[in-house]
Amino acid sequence: MSVGVRVAVVGASGVVGRMMVRILEERHFPVADLKLYATARSAGTAIPFKDAQVIVEETGEAVFDADLVLFAGGDDASRRLAWGAAERGGVAIDNSSTWRLDPRVPLVVPEVNGAALQRHQGVIANPNCCAVALVMALKPLHDAVGIRRCHVATYQSVSGGGLDNMRALLAQSRSLLEVPDALEGGDLQRIAGAAGAEVPVAFNVRPQWRWEANGDTEEEAKIEAETRKMLDADVRVTVTTMRVPVLVGHTLALHLELERPLDPPAARSVLGAAPGVEVVDDPAGGRFPTPLLAAGRDPVYVGLIRPDRAEAHGLRLVVCSDNLRKGAALNAVQIAEHLLAAGRLSARTRAAMP
Amino acid sequence: MSVGVRVAVVGASGVVGRMMVRILEERHFPVADLKLYATARSAGTAIPFKDAQVIVEETGEAVFDADLVLFAGGDDASRRLAWGAAERGGVAIDNSSTWRLDPRVPLVVPEVNGAALQRHQGVIANPNCCAVALVMALKPLHDAVGIRRCHVATYQSVSGGGLDNMRALLAQSRSLLEVPDALEGGDLQRIAGAAGAEVPVAFNVRPQWRWEANGDTEEEAKIEAETRKMLDADVRVTVTTMRVPVLVGHTLALHLELERPLDPPAARSVLGAAPGVEVVDDPAGGRFPTPLLAAGRDPVYVGLIRPDRAEAHGLRLVVCSDNLRKGAALNAVQIAEHLLAAGRLSARTRAAMP
Repeated sequence: MSVGVRVAVVGASGVVGRMMVRILEERHFPVADLKLYATARSAGTAIPFKDAQVIVEETGEAVFDADLVLFAGGDDASRRLAWGAAERGGVAIDNSSTWRLDPRVPLVVPEVNGAALQRHQGVIANPNCCAVALVMALKPLHDAVGIRRCHVATYQSVSGGGLDNMRALLAQSRSLLEVPDALEGGDLQRIAGAAGAEVPVAFNVRPQWRWEANGDTEEEAKIEAETRKMLDADVRVTVTTMRVPVLVGHTLALHLELERPLDPPAARSVLGAAPGVEVVDDPAGGRFPTPLLAAGRDPVYVGLIRPDRAEAHGLRLVVCSDNLRKGAALNAVQIAEHLLAAGRLSARTRAAMP
Repeated sequence: MSVGVRVAVVGASGVVGRMMVRILEERHFPVADLKLYATARSAGTAIPFKDAQVIVEETGEAVFDADLVLFAGGDDASRRLAWGAAERGGVAIDNSSTWRLDPRVPLVVPEVNGAALQRHQGVIANPNCCAVALVMALKPLHDAVGIRRCHVATYQSVSGGGLDNMRALLAQSRSLLEVPDALEGGDLQRIAGAAGAEVPVAFNVRPQWRWEANGDTEEEAKIEAETRKMLDADVRVTVTTMRVPVLVGHTLALHLELERPLDPPAARSVLGAAPGVEVVDDPAGGRFPTPLLAAGRDPVYVGLIRPDRAEAHGLRLVVCSDNLRKGAALNAVQIAEHLLAAGRLSARTRAAMP
């Protein structure tokens, strides 16, 4: 008999939900029982976990008999079901944006503000994928010298929008590549029309989120607010978000104004000592962060650390991370591991799944 | 008989050289005679101009008997041959970076600092493709309210690196799309290796320029220095440059600190009145600048004009332009048109080509 945790994953058939199941297995999380839920469309699907196939059930108004409920199913399921899971004695870790700014709900990246978990009331929010990567890079620098201002431009992969967006990028790319004169700029517009998307993302750059009333993308608003909640409400963060034709892995270009000076070698030391961060910074040797390097890997990669000469104490850097792993599923599982280690995830003595 | 200009294009077989020939024709530039030059590898190629095919000659140590010599052949040809062309009474318009910061040489975007052409000594520099787009967007704002600081992140197309880079992106994209499980992040890395590029640009984001001793990309150094030379030496410009999997069209995300306030509607008015600039800013209606919109078109597109709340007087905007047209060939031909209109391009009475 070993200690095991009864786990439920809501939205298990989506790109983040599947990654949660994979990461529970990869990290040998002590799962005693695994229930998977999704919308009616995906109910009945089999998803592999260890040597078994787990059949997905319809979420509906599910009552979770679980110690840990991972929500990856979007705002609606989280809004309806997260607090119910908590009331039945489980802990809900929610990847949607629904509860992230709620004062009752800790918004946590364990390496950055794991202590906030001590105050949880049953629902814990997993941050936006870019906000995770951003605070992972900013926190060590903020602790070292203070960050006053942070300008961010994002280069985000389509997997942030789910499997359908990934398939759309592949389909659009295939359409364009079938055209023999694809090298001609003028033809791209014609092909884009043929690809069936009004503003495609293949061979293009575009914002691809809902718009806030103030003109920001929903993504910009999330990154700014969540970074302030996790890092420091006094840091001024301003973001321009864009999607690029990349399947997995988000890239962020940061221009920072620091309170006290920090030269690139010192910044490399500070970041190199931060847990979960990997400095990759030998550009002349062809080593720098890219989404392709980050895809499928756990660290948040930081590099291209250079001065920002527009500021008195300025620093530029580039951050890449797998938006499905550290940006979503991995961070959620790490929160669960943190709770388990602190004895704050109700784990009963029970046979773990083989 | 009409007034005609004897034109030579050096580097005529490259992506910018070919675009120069095309734009001379599109804009009905009064060409009396057209000579095309390229390296030995491309000598003998036929390039269409109007109803004729012009055979490319080897540049070698060519002596140009021309009123206008457009250089698109890279640093070596420009360094060796630009001043010689000028000494023989012609005007050299040079798209390489060789002479851009030389105090004898005007660096010109006609809509921004056309007056600088009055001081030319026979060699005129055509700016870096991103610098053109940047000053086109900044100049009207700088004149209106003053720009103190400008943070730029670029999303640059591979055509900035020439035809070979465009072919490489297409080849890499095809390799990746042949893999059935391309949706899996981990596999992308394996495929990237199979595509034969150590750090591919297909489905990726990466810097792809030579490195300066201070850690900047050569592109970042050019954009910063050229913007200061054309716009105002006191504006602090700081840039992070990246290539994205786009064939044609560069995108720039700008975060500006202004000296005096300017809200988005006022900024739209200022930019909307600027020659060569087109404001595309109805994001909720799906209208914003993209490289696909800009490719094959002449304007510099500006949109996503929003406040930058990290600054006292801050503005964010996004700029897209065709890097081969306004970023290179079009701007060079516009300089020539400007000189011709001012009677400063030696044009003799001679039959223009049909």
